Amino acid sequence: MRPTGKMHIGHYLGALKNWLQLQKEYDCIFGIVDWHALTTSFEHTEDIERNIIDMAVDWFSVGIDPEVCIPMIQSLVPEHAELHLLLSMVTPLGWLERNPVLKQQLQDMGLKEAVGYGHLGYPVLMAADIIIYQGVKVPVGEDQVPHIEIAREMVRRFHFLYQQEVFKEPQPLLTETPRILGIDGRKMSKSLNNAIGLSDTKEELRTKVLSMFTDPEKVRKRDPGHPERCNVFSFHNIVGNPRVEQIEEDCRTGDLGCVDCKKELLGYMVDYLEEITPFRERYQGKDQLVKNILVEGSRKAQTLARETMQKVREAMHIAYQIPR
Amino acid sequence: MRPTGKMHIGHYLGALKNWLQLQKEYDCIFGIVDWHALTTSFEHTEDIERNIIDMAVDWFSVGIDPEVCIPMIQSLVPEHAELHLLLSMVTPLGWLERNPVLKQQLQDMGLKEAVGYGHLGYPVLMAADIIIYQGVKVPVGEDQVPHIEIAREMVRRFHFLYQQEVFKEPQPLLTETPRILGIDGRKMSKSLNNAIGLSDTKEELRTKVLSMFTDPEKVRKRDPGHPERCNVFSFHNIVGNPRVEQIEEDCRTGDLGCVDCKKELLGYMVDYLEEITPFRERYQGKDQLVKNILVEGSRKAQTLARETMQKVREAMHIAYQIPR
Ligand code: SF4
Ligand code: SF4
Repeated sequence: MRPTGKMHIGHYLGALKNWLQLQKEYDCIFGIVDWHALTTSFEHTEDIERNIIDMAVDWFSVGIDPEVCIPMIQSLVPEHAELHLLLSMVTPLGWLERNPVLKQQLQDMGLKEAVGYGHLGYPVLMAADIIIYQGVKVPVGEDQVPHIEIAREMVRRFHFLYQQEVFKEPQPLLTETPRILGIDGRKMSKSLNNAIGLSDTKEELRTKVLSMFTDPEKVRKRDPGHPERCNVFSFHNIVGNPRVEQIEEDCRTGDLGCVDCKKELLGYMVDYLEEITPFRERYQGKDQLVKNILVEGSRKAQTLARETMQKVREAMHIAYQIPR
Repeated sequence: MRPTGKMHIGHYLGALKNWLQLQKEYDCIFGIVDWHALTTSFEHTEDIERNIIDMAVDWFSVGIDPEVCIPMIQSLVPEHAELHLLLSMVTPLGWLERNPVLKQQLQDMGLKEAVGYGHLGYPVLMAADIIIYQGVKVPVGEDQVPHIEIAREMVRRFHFLYQQEVFKEPQPLLTETPRILGIDGRKMSKSLNNAIGLSDTKEELRTKVLSMFTDPEKVRKRDPGHPERCNVFSFHNIVGNPRVEQIEEDCRTGDLGCVDCKKELLGYMVDYLEEITPFRERYQGKDQLVKNILVEGSRKAQTLARETMQKVREAMHIAYQIPR
């Protein structure tokens, strides 16, 4: 995951909740890919470190458990950069130029061309991140599947070129990503400033929940509303309000007004956030502890990465008999 | 220098002779850039290590002195890969696509497009190689000047983006590269199999010199020849035969035949090669010694590279407060 800082409910429901399950089933490595953050945001790096810590605090708060998985920081394992370089030599330019993810990104950004060389090479670095750990399953959304496909092609190409099976071919582990809307009804996103953060204070939650967009046709309390078009209603579902059917009915009949409806949601929201971040106390405000965990995880990851790199260097005949 | 293996007289006159001078005037780092060898030859890596050793033996034999300069292997200083990755993020794709060196290469190779992503990024890696050591002067031929220019632009861009002076701007140190022809009259080149190697045995030299192309109009001994068109004559000059004026005259008059002329050259050639490789005995066949020197040099280089990388990470705010 890129170090985007504090996590919001969308991140939880779209990724972290899934990771909590995965860490029970697999040997997981969860990486904070700070170098990737540079592919498009190389001009704004001041916050990277703060964002790394904040993100990790939220990971650990929801239950990503450093005792059972390996949480790590990409830039603390420079072997990723070495593998990236070596893969870049065997990656045909066309694979990257045809990358549909890039094309979509450029369209979204209103650009004709990749902004930087590294941006074009995003899938090379992502492939390195995965295969350096012999990763077999990569939890991604539908939109990232082409990147995993490129990683698979690279593995095959490497094995063909050097006639040695050095890597495992990664498979996408498709994550169903529910569409979570922000308080303004647009997709929840930190940059749109409409997100409900996992670490929001009660006061922040109050302000946000009370300002949420509702059914625009329900202007006065007694106007009949349409819960299916109302994001507040979705959140009653998300937070597991047991009165959700009653709310639906009362909204439609006009027995429930939006202000009261939101106040009710607020209470459940506060509880819900507490509930899904059971380890908040242990990590919030403990920057040094969190750093130590990430450094420790990165060291474990590096041990694995080094094993792979040794095989890579041998396969490619890169000065491997010369001791480091 | 890419690890091309044993050096020939063209390498000596075009580069090494110049380096011998440079190591007296500057603090020199002479790098064997094995990763660069992959940009176009990633399919043939079996010989890289042998080539590294053979090349280094010739460097040291001519007098490149590990006591006064730093001879190193790129792949033993993985910081190059990290800087390459970081630079790749800030390098606009257009700079690389417009690179005239690449265009010329593709033309020579009969290609329309760069073969690989890493090939396109050659100047990024080359820039990393230079600026990671705060290199100020880079001995290159005219053809490589655009790469130095790209490196300079990267330095300026980095300083502009991160508002810190981390690197020095490198300058090309133009090397006059005399045009040395091989025994068949084409440019001397290992791949054309027409080169006179610095480590050729007397027997190899005999075969090569006696088979050298001469003035095609001088078929019989007594035919008048044209020394200015004869590569054998050029070599009399190169090896410093004091009888060169007499040879010129005797060739023209027909008093000297090509066979005798070559035999005379052979003697001088043997002496010349001995003379320009005064340390041959110390290094030839001593693979382990040579490796040790390169490892030692690479460690020294790494110390310097790490200092720069620390500054780079700080300037870019890359997890720098987290201890490695
Ligand atoms: S009453 Fe509740 S569910 Fe109905 S429109 Fe208002 S906020 Fe939405
Ligand atoms: S005599 Fe010597 S210089 Fe003259 S053409 Fe023959 S080889 Fe060349």
